[in-house]
Amino acid sequence: MAAVSLSVSTVKPLGDRIFVKVSESEERTAGGILLPDNAREKPQVGEVTAVGPGKLTEDGKRQPMDVKVGDKVLYSKYAGTEVKLAGEDYVLLSEKDILAIVG
Amino acid sequence: MAAVSLSVSTVKPLGDRIFVKVSESEERTAGGILLPDNAREKPQVGEVTAVGPGKLTEDGKRQPMDVKVGDKVLYSKYAGTEVKLAGEDYVLLSEKDILAIVG
Amino acid sequence: MAAVSLSVSTVKPLGDRIFVKVSESEERTAGGILLPDNAREKPQVGEVTAVGPGKLTEDGKRQPMDVKVGDKVLYSKYAGTEVKLAGEDYVLLSEKDILAIVG
Amino acid sequence: MAAVSLSVSTVKPLGDRIFVKVSESEERTAGGILLPDNAREKPQVGEVTAVGPGKLTEDGKRQPMDVKVGDKVLYSKYAGTEVKLAGEDYVLLSEKDILAIVG
Amino acid sequence: MAAVSLSVSTVKPLGDRIFVKVSESEERTAGGILLPDNAREKPQVGEVTAVGPGKLTEDGKRQPMDVKVGDKVLYSKYAGTEVKLAGEDYVLLSEKDILAIVG
Amino acid sequence: MAAVSLSVSTVKPLGDRIFVKVSESEERTAGGILLPDNAREKPQVGEVTAVGPGKLTEDGKRQPMDVKVGDKVLYSKYAGTEVKLAGEDYVLLSEKDILAIVG
Amino acid sequence: MAAVSLSVSTVKPLGDRIFVKVSESEERTAGGILLPDNAREKPQVGEVTAVGPGKLTEDGKRQPMDVKVGDKVLYSKYAGTEVKLAGEDYVLLSEKDILAIVG
Repeated sequence: MAAVSLSVSTVKPLGDRIFVKVSESEERTAGGILLPDNAREKPQVGEVTAVGPGKLTEDGKRQPMDVKVGDKVLYSKYAGTEVKLAGEDYVLLSEKDILAIVG
Repeated sequence: MAAVSLSVSTVKPLGDRIFVKVSESEERTAGGILLPDNAREKPQVGEVTAVGPGKLTEDGKRQPMDVKVGDKVLYSKYAGTEVKLAGEDYVLLSEKDILAIVG
Repeated sequence: MAAVSLSVSTVKPLGDRIFVKVSESEERTAGGILLPDNAREKPQVGEVTAVGPGKLTEDGKRQPMDVKVGDKVLYSKYAGTEVKLAGEDYVLLSEKDILAIVG
Repeated sequence: MAAVSLSVSTVKPLGDRIFVKVSESEERTAGGILLPDNAREKPQVGEVTAVGPGKLTEDGKRQPMDVKVGDKVLYSKYAGTEVKLAGEDYVLLSEKDILAIVG
Repeated sequence: MAAVSLSVSTVKPLGDRIFVKVSESEERTAGGILLPDNAREKPQVGEVTAVGPGKLTEDGKRQPMDVKVGDKVLYSKYAGTEVKLAGEDYVLLSEKDILAIVG
Repeated sequence: MAAVSLSVSTVKPLGDRIFVKVSESEERTAGGILLPDNAREKPQVGEVTAVGPGKLTEDGKRQPMDVKVGDKVLYSKYAGTEVKLAGEDYVLLSEKDILAIVG
Repeated sequence: MAAVSLSVSTVKPLGDRIFVKVSESEERTAGGILLPDNAREKPQVGEVTAVGPGKLTEDGKRQPMDVKVGDKVLYSKYAGTEVKLAGEDYVLLSEKDILAIVG
């Protein structure tokens, strides 16, 4: 069996999942967001790279997604599944794990 | 990758989430609210800074939000995600974590 | 940031929440209710001070509330969020935590 | 604040709750029900004193109650909230905690 | 308060509950069912004595019951509430705890 | 009380339950299925002996069953209730515990 | 009882289940996906071999499946049931355990 060769452009999230490139930690950026060490649910900033088609409802429709490719998002650091691709950190999240669009 | 620069005005909560500026503790303000130390679920006062578009229902509509920007709200201290922005404390909450509008 | 000044009349509960003034303990009032020390879920008596607009249903309607301002209610002592206001004890409850109207 | 004076007739259960007067233990009544000590969920006998208006459904209707005042009922000893009123034991139960009508 | 006198014929299960007379253990009946000691969820055989009117659906109808008085049923030994009546063992079960009709 | 005499043909599963005859373990059958010892959820092969009428939906219809008598099925070894009948091993499963039809 | 002989082509997943051939681990493939050892929920790559007919909704319809035979998929390593068939590793997953299509 040949090894599967993956690249960022081939990742298509299913349902309401979102593929996010993790932003560098910026704990003390002037005027920027500060994520307190003792936060109950530590938030993280990232940029949306790919967006699923939306959750399928009982009557066969798709729920529209509220984020789009390019959005900067704030999400819980403990949510989703981490993936490393070509040396960069990515995370696959459900849209409900996105707290806010921040840019 | 450039660091993401955030400011309060760029934070757009998703779904039924609310962005709240945490009010200073006012444990013994005369005539004001007193939050007992031994309270089971310690409440906290804050001011609403941004409000999400509302939760998406199964049939694709938005549930209206009961709070608006500028409302003073009482919420559980143990709910939501803390965020520090330009030296001030904020919290991202779901509307269900808001107990009451208090001003 | 100025301290938020709160008074009882400004507290507007959200959804199906109810703002209740806790009645004095009356463990042995003649003919009155007696709350056994070994009760599994200790009930408490209070008076309704403010009532939320009702829970929002999926189709955007409000479920009517079964209690009104002035009702004496019995509720579980371990439910809700305690708040002290101008020296008096209050509690914010969901209507489902109200066991019965008792006067 | 005046003490709240309660009597049995003033107790109006909310929703699908039921106010039950606990029957005396009758562990070995001839021909009567015997509640085994090692029962997983110990049942108890009582008499219905007041019945709530029924659970409110999503479309604003009341679900009819299957028990009425005067029914003897069997319920789980570990369900509900105990209340003592004028020296007698009562319990506030949800209808789902009622196992059977027994007389 | 007079003791409540109960007999099998007076037991009317509520909702989807079923009143079952527990059959004697028959661990090694030839050709009969054998209940392994190491079974994850030990099944038990009994005979249906009384059947509730069925679970009430959201729109006020009763779901029909799949068992009737006289059916021999197989149920999980760890489900329901045990009751002893006139020296015999009974159990109050929800229909969902009935695994199969066996005679 | 006479002992209940059971035979395979009398077992009628309720709802979406399925009565399955457990197949002999075949850990290393050439070309056959191999169930790894360290599997998280150990699968098991069996043959469907009896099928329930289907789960009752809220509006009183039966959901059709996807397996039929005679199907070879793969199911989780930790699901359902084991029953021994005339020296053979059977298991009562919910259809959701069936992973796949394998023959 | 004859041993059940299984082959890949006979495996028909039920409902929303998917039969996936596990891809070889490729921890450091150049340009390929890298699965961090300390990932919270370790993802795994595989190829879809068979797809169930879709989940049955309450009104008797099938929800369409978002993956098809031949898709390369990313799924949580801790989801589903492992099966070994003719020396190869397979896994039976629910579609919700599929994070993304990756090729």
